[in-house]
This record gives sequence, structure tokens and C-alpha cells, in this order.
Amino acid sequence: MSILDEARARDAADPLARYRDRFILPDGVIYLDGNSLGALPRATPARLAQVVESEWGDGLIRSWNAAPGGGPGWIGLPRRVGGKIAALIGAKPHEVVACDSTSVNLHKLIAAALMMQPGRRVILSEPGNFPTNLYMIAGLEAQGLCERRLVPSERLAAALGEPDVALLLLTHVHYKTGAMHDMAALSRAARKAGVLTLWDLSHSAGAVELDLEAAGVDLAVGCGYKYLNGGPGAPAFAYAAERHHDRLRQPLTGWFGHARPFAFVDDYDPARGIDRLLAGTPPVLGLAALEVGVDLVGEIGIAPLAAKSRELSGFFLNCLEELNVALECVSPPDPLRRGSQLSFRHADAFAVCQALIARGVVGDFRAPDVLRLGFAPAYLRFADMAQAARHLADILRSGEWREERFQTRSAVT
Amino acid sequence: MSILDEARARDAADPLARYRDRFILPDGVIYLDGNSLGALPRATPARLAQVVESEWGDGLIRSWNAAPGGGPGWIGLPRRVGGKIAALIGAKPHEVVACDSTSVNLHKLIAAALMMQPGRRVILSEPGNFPTNLYMIAGLEAQGLCERRLVPSERLAAALGEPDVALLLLTHVHYKTGAMHDMAALSRAARKAGVLTLWDLSHSAGAVELDLEAAGVDLAVGCGYKYLNGGPGAPAFAYAAERHHDRLRQPLTGWFGHARPFAFVDDYDPARGIDRLLAGTPPVLGLAALEVGVDLVGEIGIAPLAAKSRELSGFFLNCLEELNVALECVSPPDPLRRGSQLSFRHADAFAVCQALIARGVVGDFRAPDVLRLGFAPAYLRFADMAQAARHLADILRSGEWREERFQTRSAVT
Repeated sequence: MSILDEARARDAADPLARYRDRFILPDGVIYLDGNSLGALPRATPARLAQVVESEWGDGLIRSWNAAPGGGPGWIGLPRRVGGKIAALIGAKPHEVVACDSTSVNLHKLIAAALMMQPGRRVILSEPGNFPTNLYMIAGLEAQGLCERRLVPSERLAAALGEPDVALLLLTHVHYKTGAMHDMAALSRAARKAGVLTLWDLSHSAGAVELDLEAAGVDLAVGCGYKYLNGGPGAPAFAYAAERHHDRLRQPLTGWFGHARPFAFVDDYDPARGIDRLLAGTPPVLGLAALEVGVDLVGEIGIAPLAAKSRELSGFFLNCLEELNVALECVSPPDPLRRGSQLSFRHADAFAVCQALIARGVVGDFRAPDVLRLGFAPAYLRFADMAQAARHLADILRSGEWREERFQTRSAVT
Repeated sequence: MSILDEARARDAADPLARYRDRFILPDGVIYLDGNSLGALPRATPARLAQVVESEWGDGLIRSWNAAPGGGPGWIGLPRRVGGKIAALIGAKPHEVVACDSTSVNLHKLIAAALMMQPGRRVILSEPGNFPTNLYMIAGLEAQGLCERRLVPSERLAAALGEPDVALLLLTHVHYKTGAMHDMAALSRAARKAGVLTLWDLSHSAGAVELDLEAAGVDLAVGCGYKYLNGGPGAPAFAYAAERHHDRLRQPLTGWFGHARPFAFVDDYDPARGIDRLLAGTPPVLGLAALEVGVDLVGEIGIAPLAAKSRELSGFFLNCLEELNVALECVSPPDPLRRGSQLSFRHADAFAVCQALIARGVVGDFRAPDVLRLGFAPAYLRFADMAQAARHLADILRSGEWREERFQTRSAVT
């Protein structure tokens, strides 16, 4: 049986196959970049048209309280969408809000951790963590509020024992390699050392199984535009374990985080619970689009999505082997130790990526030498795996990636 | 001639009358709350559908670089929309970016001012300033980074002389009364005292004439969802005078503010120029909607908008006089000293506002006793003024605002 025949048989047996039609995908494209920007849910355009034309155009300011016809008002969006994300990451509904960007939420929660840890000022992370994690620590360091300490992954457990460490900040699934940290073990070790944990779930939420409560995680953030399919620049989310809510303080004390935003008093009084993580007026259009994506992920279910993700990447590796492609895979071989992606090292990964794109296989390049292929399980088929593997094999065998046209760098990749 | 006849004559002669049709407004509503949420531009739904269905759905990740068909990519949105806002506020195109919320941008620029003013740690503002201004100072104060000092408006000039003052933070047009500060005079006094200025233009941009450059303003922020008609929770904007760009540092050092965001290096290196005010991934849907609103304001022109705004509010006051309405106006009587609104004090302003809304006249209530009516000049007619004044007169004369149904408070007003 050829790999394509096998793929078709697997697609026919795939209980998630029917969900592909719930997305709008361009013809002629095999989209292996849902880990960078998730695809468009079929229901999103109509929902956005409703928000714009009915709720904004017709309801105007009144839609903060209630939508025309009596639907829920915009005021509840950050909590409502947050509550739905909570169900995907093993948190309680009132432990998550959707708001701002991942970067801004990182600042809130790093600063909050520092305020909860008097006498400790080190933020511990690893070199090569997703840049915005490291940069957001640097911003607080430039204010004189903390010290950034980067320690290679294998030495993190030991570094937790140093008495000045306030917070361990890690990305759960590494953006470049897809390697997944052992969240429960590291969180346990941190707790023993009196260190708080802040996990960036950007490459996890919607793709792998998460149980923040069981893992004893203190704080978390994550991205809305990858596996949650919230659209370009979608609002992010922020999580804080309920046990910390009362003493949680963060510095972006905008009016939407106030206990009584419409009392218009001069002094800040933080809202009860997770709402105190809100800052300014919530981005309604972005939240409405994000809700559609989150609803769809919730409907499919995280366990079947994660299982299919592992099958897709495993099958892709089988296809490469079948096609005699010798490419160094930098992602962990154990599918339970990686997120929903496979990354390959190649000296000219940029050009290989461009050559794939020219053939309609959209992955991405991560500097300096990584070709990154994401396997968003909600809308990809096993046949996509077989075809993408064949294109990659053809490109490498023919050397077509050496062509001049694949060498030009663009602003974003 | 009745006030309605006079209104109709004025509408017939109004050179801006034709722009009303460029907005979608609900039937049966006189919308006097464009200062809280601007109306929907007629071009917005189609532009958003294009962003969602073509750029996201079809272009997917590739739209960061270029839209399908070759249009500009999303990567340039914060600068492009910022540049268009700059033209409305008397700034250079490269001095403004559109991003995040007003609250978040306030944090960036207050913190930036503190870093530029070593040895000075007082942020000066006035009591009763829009809460999020005061709360954002409080957030930095709780981090031990500054001291908040609130001084009544008439004593601000004197307070600038105190040697520990780093920054004067004021809202140019007061959200509640509509009173407008003398931006040029206060900025001049601040500069003389070695104090930086940060102006919140939320109730000014798109409604009154502004010349930040001539006024020598250092820093500014403003809102996208009021007179700029960017939609609910639209991205805000941030301005920094070019002379400060090189030494400007702000603490929300996300990857989009990096000199080379896609180099994925561990250390933060701020982008040249205004881009260093960016933090996380820009909210594309919100920016696309905001651009339509900003384009429309730019097409109409700030000078004619400001002139019409003054005529509308002046005419509304005439109508009230004609109708013998005795209501204390807390906005400055001189139209050149107020923004595009009129505010009235009434012991039960909440109920009066609800009674107006029941009659289709949508204004808003600002605690504890202010009825606030906004006169967005891009889409309001003089006939709206005459009719709204008559409804208000009827409500006050009949006492219908005393009815039980107008007493219930809702979450947002």
C-alpha cells in the first residue's frame, strides 16, 4: 500500500475528519502553519458580521449591557471567553480571562509574582525560550524590579533551589523544537522551593492535554491565534490559580480591572477574582472572533485533538522514512514529549521552506536553520501528511530549493 | 421660525450633511453618545469581511507580508494607522502607532517618562481625571516606581514648579464636563519646569483641533472607539515626539517592539523610532476596523468637524433656552474651551438619561449626577439637536423620569 493509500484509509476512519469542513481553507494549500496562525472557522464571518452590523451598528453603546434582541452584552466577553478557554486547559472557569496580548499578560503576571514574593527578585527561564517571554522579563529588569536568569533546560531543577528565585517562567511547548516540558514535575519542584510558576501555553492550548489544576500551576498565559483559531492578533488569555486571587496585584491597573469601573472614583480598588487582571476596554471584535474558535475546539474536544495530533506527526515521520528522506528532526521522538509540530534542521531551511510554499505546502522557518511544520489536528488530513512529505522529498532530492527565487528574505516568515 | 424649522434650514446649508450617509445608524435613534462609542462607518463591514475571508481565510499566515492580490501586509498596520491618526492631531506620521488599549499605552508612557527623568518620581495629575489615567499611575506607584500627586486644575501651574515632578498627565478634554485644558500653555509651563507632558486625547482626537507639534507636547495617548469610530474596544494610539525617540524606553518590551522581531534572539534590542512602543502581536481585526474610521475622519477634515461640533452644541443650548429648560450646564459656556459634548447636572441624572433613552435619545450618565450628551459632528444633524432638546424638555416638564422603570441601574451606563 502506498503512503497515499494508507493516508486515505486513515482519513476514512478518522472520527475528526468531519470537522475539516467547519473551517474555510484555501484551495491548493496544505496548511502546516496553524501553530502560527490558525485557520478561519466557517462560523466566524457571520458572527463578526453580527457583532459589527447588529451589535455595534444597531445596538451602539447599549450593546455593552445587552445585544439587540437580548443576547449577552459585551461587558461579559473577557470572562465568558476566558471560562471557555479554562475548560480546555484544566482550569476553573473563573480562573481565566481573555484580554490583551500574550506579551502584555506576561508583564502583568511576572510583575504580580514579584509583588507576591518579597525578598526574591530573580525570574528564572531558559535561553532560547520564545523571545517575548525573555523580553518581557527584560522590560521589568530595566525598571530595576527584577533580575533575569537564563539557565539551560537540564539545569532548571537545580537552579530552582537558589534562594533569590521568585518565579519560573517557561513556555510549555517550545515554539521552535516542539519539545514539551514536564509541567507537573517542574511545578512541583518549584513549589517545594517556594518558587511560583508562570507557564506560557501559546503552543499548547487547543493542541495538547493540559491540567493546570492537577499540575499545581500558579500562573499562565497563552495565545488566541494559534490552535484556538481566534484570528490574526487575537486577544490572549491569562490564568491565575484561585488560591492566589486575593493577594494577586498587577501593575496594569486599568479601569476594567476596578471593582466598580463605572463609579468613576479616583482611587484604584481591584475587582474581586480574576477580573483584576483586566486593564483597558476589552477588544470586542477580537474577542467575538476568538469565541468562535474556542467554541469549535471545545466542541471537538481536547483529548481527541491531542490524539490525532500525535497520529498525524507520527504518520508524517513514517512517510519521510518511506520516502528515504534523511533530515535531522529536532523535535522529541516520543510523541508524548512534543507538541503538535515537527521541526527539522537544514542549513538552508529558509529556502527549503520557500520551495515548499511555492508548491502550496505552507510551513514556516525559524531562524537560523529550522523548518517548522505544524499539524493542527482540527482540520488536517492524513492525506495532507502524505502529500506534504512527498513534496519535501522531491524538493530535497531535486535540489530545487537552491533556485535563486527561494533565497529572498521577507519581513515576516 | 420654530427651532425645528431653523434646524432644518441649518441642515440644508451644512457642508458636512452628506457624510451622515457614510455611517449606518439605527432608525428611531438620536445618538448622542458618539463620545463613548462612535457609530459604524458604512464601509467597515465590507472591509472587515475582506480581512477575515480573504486575508485571514485565504491568505492565512502569508498576509502578514502581503494580502492576497498584493495589498499591504498586516505587519505595517500599527504604523500605517498611526500615521493616519498623526495627521488628525498635528503630529508627524512616524510619531504615532496604533496598538493596545489606552490604559496599556498610558502605562508604557508614564513608565517611559520616569526612566527619562532620573531623580524625579512624581506624576502630577488632577482629581477627577478619567479614572484609568489615575489608576495607571497607581499601578506604577504600587510597584514603588513613582508617587501620584493630584492637584486641582487651578493649582496645576504652581505645582509644576516642585522639583520632584517628572510628568504632567492630563486628559485634554475632560470626560465628564467636556472642559478643555489649554494644552499649549500647560505644556510650555511644564517644559520650563523640566517636567514632561503626557496628554490623553481620548475625548479630543477626531473632534477638536489639535497641534501636538506646535504645543510642544512630549507624549500622548488616545482612544480609537470614540470620535475615530474604530468600533467597540478598538485599538488605541500612542504618540512620542520625535526628539525623544532615541532615549525612549518603555517596560512592555514585547517582540513586536524589537529591532529584529524575527531574528528570535534572547536579548531585547528596541526598534528604531516609534515602533519601540509596540508590545505583542497587533490586533489585526481591530486595526482594520479602526483604519476605516480614521480614513473617514481624515476625509471629512478636522477643522470642519470641530467647527460643526461647536455649532451643534451652541444650537442645542439655544434650543434648551427657547424651550425654557433650566438645567445646570457644567460644560464651559465658551465653545472654544470645551470638547464636542455638553454635560448637565441633575440630582437624578441617571433616571433622566434612562427616560431619554426610552424616547430614542441615547446619551449617557456619569456618576454621580451628570447627564452627558455628545455631539459627534460627522453624523449628527441640527434636527437631531432640536428633537433631542424637545424630548429633554418634555421629560423634565412632565416628570416622567420619576417613573419606576427609569430607576434600575445596569452594569454599564
